[in-house]
Amino acid sequence: MTADQAKLLLGPGPSNAHPQVLEAMSAPLIGHMDPEFLEVMADIKSMLQNAFQTENHLTFAVSAPGSAGMETCLVNLLEPGDEALICVHGVFGNRMSDIVERCGAKLIRVDAPWGKAIDPEQVKQALEQHQPKLVAIVHAETSTGVLQPMAEISKLTKDAGALLVVDAVTSFCGTELRVDEWGIDAVYSGSQKCLSAPPGLSPVSFSERAVTTILKRNSKVQSWFLDLSLVSNYWQGAKRAYHHTAPVSSMFALKQALQLVMEEGLENRYARHWEAHQLLKAGLEDLGFEFLVEEGFRLPMLNAIKLPSHINDQEVRSKLLNHYRIEIGAGLGDFAGKVWRIGLMGENARPQAVDQLLSALKEIV
Amino acid sequence: MTADQAKLLLGPGPSNAHPQVLEAMSAPLIGHMDPEFLEVMADIKSMLQNAFQTENHLTFAVSAPGSAGMETCLVNLLEPGDEALICVHGVFGNRMSDIVERCGAKLIRVDAPWGKAIDPEQVKQALEQHQPKLVAIVHAETSTGVLQPMAEISKLTKDAGALLVVDAVTSFCGTELRVDEWGIDAVYSGSQKCLSAPPGLSPVSFSERAVTTILKRNSKVQSWFLDLSLVSNYWQGAKRAYHHTAPVSSMFALKQALQLVMEEGLENRYARHWEAHQLLKAGLEDLGFEFLVEEGFRLPMLNAIKLPSHINDQEVRSKLLNHYRIEIGAGLGDFAGKVWRIGLMGENARPQAVDQLLSALKEIV
Repeated sequence: MTADQAKLLLGPGPSNAHPQVLEAMSAPLIGHMDPEFLEVMADIKSMLQNAFQTENHLTFAVSAPGSAGMETCLVNLLEPGDEALICVHGVFGNRMSDIVERCGAKLIRVDAPWGKAIDPEQVKQALEQHQPKLVAIVHAETSTGVLQPMAEISKLTKDAGALLVVDAVTSFCGTELRVDEWGIDAVYSGSQKCLSAPPGLSPVSFSERAVTTILKRNSKVQSWFLDLSLVSNYWQGAKRAYHHTAPVSSMFALKQALQLVMEEGLENRYARHWEAHQLLKAGLEDLGFEFLVEEGFRLPMLNAIKLPSHINDQEVRSKLLNHYRIEIGAGLGDFAGKVWRIGLMGENARPQAVDQLLSALKEIV
Repeated sequence: MTADQAKLLLGPGPSNAHPQVLEAMSAPLIGHMDPEFLEVMADIKSMLQNAFQTENHLTFAVSAPGSAGMETCLVNLLEPGDEALICVHGVFGNRMSDIVERCGAKLIRVDAPWGKAIDPEQVKQALEQHQPKLVAIVHAETSTGVLQPMAEISKLTKDAGALLVVDAVTSFCGTELRVDEWGIDAVYSGSQKCLSAPPGLSPVSFSERAVTTILKRNSKVQSWFLDLSLVSNYWQGAKRAYHHTAPVSSMFALKQALQLVMEEGLENRYARHWEAHQLLKAGLEDLGFEFLVEEGFRLPMLNAIKLPSHINDQEVRSKLLNHYRIEIGAGLGDFAGKVWRIGLMGENARPQAVDQLLSALKEIV
């Protein structure tokens, strides 16, 4: 391995971008109000609709990373005094709870132990006691590797008349995500995971019901930058109004990454992620590693592995990074020092990447 | 001119990026917690300190465009009930006022007619009647082309015990900006103007006094994404804490763009912007155009030109863009259809760019 060789990014994101994506990003700049750029935005919108499996008009990319997408969803839908039911089973549910409180909304929490999915029964009970404006849940908890089943919780939320907000940062373009069919009212993602574009953008989509809720607000959204009543005038409508200077180069990269997804096909891409996960699972189990999450609830693109006591977390990860040029992710929050998070996302959900990691691990541990 | 040739971006930004900057951006990705990336962040910080002429520890780039930098400054420094004096002489002062209200702070406005600078006497009078926590002003009003003199207003602000917040989005790296010497407590900029990096990042810097103010807050910052008590743990300190996934590629580009600024030297760069402006001024006056702003208050990098009644705004700008592949900026807000905004920023503050525009204009009008 030489220092010039690109690192293999098998952490929780960013994943490696396809050479065509990097090339697209280095194209000469154009203006953010140039009709040529407005076409790029239109292409991005229509491919995002496809990738999210939605017909939502308000589908675009927030000009900032996934956590700004999370904030966009919550600050636009919540007003002071509103109730929000947040399902917490890892770092990102915690983050949503924090933002809810910053909105001046009343937080109702449903917690599951880290590494488990949220039990729909808990949501049911909470909805019997409260009438929240929205229920928010992380579809793919990047801090624990849990894939949250959505069907029951979606039904409960709809029956309670609440809006459903979903964090799909890590699941988007890597496993099944059906925004319309699943009744999701607001969803946010990131560019740098299974989409394999550089980090910095957050694809989002809002149902008509969510848009109506936003239009009926009594108070201004607390963030000017994320205020959808303003941002949407730049992303849609006949007369595009300047809001902020869009990150033009990053949008070029996003467009190219989405084109690669469209060429591959969503189902093929999901299958590729699943197969890479199976390969990694077999190899890790041969090496004696155990998964944190129960089978059936595991994210294919983010594999949380229990760290055996004889392995020095920091030392092995440093060796992987510096000697083998492979990044894997450390544990986050409660799991710091206790788990590894191995990402097989987008371009890296391939047998070569799995083999490269497994042979390095065999040499080290 | 062929369709393949890069457009010449002489609007209000983005400006054209140097080929080395575009190349840096297309380098293979690395992780946002990789020690190699933390070094990139350290390099960016130290070059930003130089470019801002400051020793402020809390100097970094917000992972979103300039308007998020504006919001970062205001939401961190203001709490509900605080008073803020905002100087408004164009679109961006208006935007600051809007954000102040979204913070739940009390807005005190000092207005100047668009195209004029703020008169320090107005600020003086306002400070005799109010005791605001901060005074905010736009150094380079991109909507009007006005360069705001800072010395008197800075002194008045300090004497009143208020914090000074400055919008340097368009002035940064293009004309004199001395953060420490001018007593600026919070400053924000953009990557895509005189720095000639792609849009999407906002360099910011905060004085010790600003940091102390933030540490003493009684309430949480309303934005999780922009909360400096969290972001600063990622950008500084021995133990870097994950906050959000930084836009790695855009940071590569920012670093390279800052290196080009350092190689050229700030004074040389300011002089280059000034000379390009002089050349443009002479040429435009030959063609019969008049400047909107009084001499002595003109921004060298953003030239606001009155539109004679015989010129069709939309038609000429479209022709410039489509036939000559030159972008210039339309009027914004009150000035829509009445002025053009010609940017000579960063890489484009050069005689060739001026000549290219002047000869195109000669042919058209």
